[in-house]
Amino acid sequence: MENSDQLKQTYQATTYKLSNNGPRNIAVLQEAISGICGDELSDIYGTGEIITHFEEKIAHVLGLEGAVFFPSGTMAQQIALRIWADRKQIPKVAYHPLAHLEIHEADGLKQIHHIETLLLGESDRVVTLADIKALSQKVSCVLLELPQREIGGQLPSFQELVEISMYCREHQIALHLDGARLFEILPFYQKEAKEVCALFDSVYVSFYKGLGGIAGAILAGPNDFLEEAKIWKRRYGGDLISLYPYILSADYYYEKRKDSMALYYEKAVELAKQFNQLPGVRTIPEIPVSNMFHVEFLKPVLEVKARLAQVHQETDIGVTGYLVEKDTNTSSFELTVGDAIFKIQAKELLHLFQVLS
Amino acid sequence: MENSDQLKQTYQATTYKLSNNGPRNIAVLQEAISGICGDELSDIYGTGEIITHFEEKIAHVLGLEGAVFFPSGTMAQQIALRIWADRKQIPKVAYHPLAHLEIHEADGLKQIHHIETLLLGESDRVVTLADIKALSQKVSCVLLELPQREIGGQLPSFQELVEISMYCREHQIALHLDGARLFEILPFYQKEAKEVCALFDSVYVSFYKGLGGIAGAILAGPNDFLEEAKIWKRRYGGDLISLYPYILSADYYYEKRKDSMALYYEKAVELAKQFNQLPGVRTIPEIPVSNMFHVEFLKPVLEVKARLAQVHQETDIGVTGYLVEKDTNTSSFELTVGDAIFKIQAKELLHLFQVLS
Repeated sequence: MENSDQLKQTYQATTYKLSNNGPRNIAVLQEAISGICGDELSDIYGTGEIITHFEEKIAHVLGLEGAVFFPSGTMAQQIALRIWADRKQIPKVAYHPLAHLEIHEADGLKQIHHIETLLLGESDRVVTLADIKALSQKVSCVLLELPQREIGGQLPSFQELVEISMYCREHQIALHLDGARLFEILPFYQKEAKEVCALFDSVYVSFYKGLGGIAGAILAGPNDFLEEAKIWKRRYGGDLISLYPYILSADYYYEKRKDSMALYYEKAVELAKQFNQLPGVRTIPEIPVSNMFHVEFLKPVLEVKARLAQVHQETDIGVTGYLVEKDTNTSSFELTVGDAIFKIQAKELLHLFQVLS
Repeated sequence: MENSDQLKQTYQATTYKLSNNGPRNIAVLQEAISGICGDELSDIYGTGEIITHFEEKIAHVLGLEGAVFFPSGTMAQQIALRIWADRKQIPKVAYHPLAHLEIHEADGLKQIHHIETLLLGESDRVVTLADIKALSQKVSCVLLELPQREIGGQLPSFQELVEISMYCREHQIALHLDGARLFEILPFYQKEAKEVCALFDSVYVSFYKGLGGIAGAILAGPNDFLEEAKIWKRRYGGDLISLYPYILSADYYYEKRKDSMALYYEKAVELAKQFNQLPGVRTIPEIPVSNMFHVEFLKPVLEVKARLAQVHQETDIGVTGYLVEKDTNTSSFELTVGDAIFKIQAKELLHLFQVLS
């Protein structure tokens, strides 16, 4: 058995996990819909109470004029950028080098919309106002991802966000928020969602990250923007006859977990501190600003994998099922605090860190 | 209250319906997943047993090398045509003037892929081999929709299909099947799905038409074609982390209704006969070749609407909730036989036609 398989298999075999909200299994859907009256009618191609009520509710939460439910954020964000590019007649947008659009979408933005992407700043830090000012070409839209997932969920200061927003408005650059994890950053900023969203022209939020739904996204913004977005949703084949399995679960888990984000954040800070006390281990960021961070091991990856597999078997707590090798002496994984960690007793968690040290 | 609203409202208020498989409500999903073990794991971005087992099962049913599950047929078919256009280096495809791609997708094929569409034959009849031979320009792909939904679900003869297939192969034209209602036509052709699919290079089937699932589609064909399709599925934002709500219901309702298609077809033939005996009424086609047909009224539309609303209230059987006005003296609706009609007692159905006459 390879070490990578062993790590994954021992992880899957553990009863408890450090990350996430529990297994992604069918029970997640069963729980979400069991309390709903079977007579309630499906949404039909974007119409009907199930979809419009949820869209109105989230638009209100985000403080934006309207909202449209999409099957995925990939679809929603490409469409948002296309609309801004069309409106400003500039087929160029700018975002972080590790933006979801750049590394996880098989170049959909370029292949479907022929939009050129300018990368802002450096891949190992968040985008700054200086990066935007330094753009060599005019762009229609800047996309900011809060938190910046691929670097452990880092954030700019709220003041920097305000300044970026002012600069973009002055320069007629649309500012779009990749808020896949928007609810997860509110405790750090000590803001409501609408205070963050007020800085942006359009906003995407996801319902299966910290909230733990099944899939699905909301794109929010001005109504005329959303009317265009609905046409593109139809073109993409995202205007399904029924999106209710995702909508109902998004609503259910939003209600279930929206008030737990501060708890997740505090636990992430506490957990990162414990990891940083281990020899040859550090977290990125050192002090988390959301419910997530990266754990980095400064040892050969095979050694770490073998050790973690032992730890899984010894503690019955899953630390991670994979490791990304950064160089011969550095590997890391992403840790995201959700409901799962709260099922582990304090002394068991303490024991885990004793075993890890 | 307007007549159109009155028709819709009286239709919705009826206990029984002539069309479909029952209300599109949450109970459809609840029924599909209630028997499944909650521990069963979600598919993850196109991987996992739930999705691969279903894809393999349907590929086997269709007799094709492989299959990929998509959230929608719109997405699946645009992608299929794009791949054929790329392979043959001809950004032109041909299909019926009332193809789904032409009239229901907000020009997605043209807007996303810049593919030119050549319309085959006439809008009020099915595509013939002669239409394909008469094409003035070379195309990469011909798409055939079986049955042709917008003209009441008409079909060419199986012999004509065989000849079209041979011609396309001879001329290096890919032949794609819009088989949204493929299972519904097998009783008329007296063929298995794989015998029809063997004539095509790629096939799309839907799981929420006659089968009555929630949403979702399969694109089937050669494995190298499907590998490209998966990349496009990712680009479109159709590669959701979890598609299982649609997959599980597709599988459940496929098993539940696949063997009822002959029953639906026979009932459609019987029902069309009864409509054709009414004064000023005819069906298209006169004798159905699937579970669907159009009912045409040769009277002013407002008169028909008012009459049908009365009929709804008098019989408690829903005939239709809408009428499409074709000209001042002609209107029609689509009738699709599913499980719903079998809940109506024979004498009640007889009574309906007495009231209608």
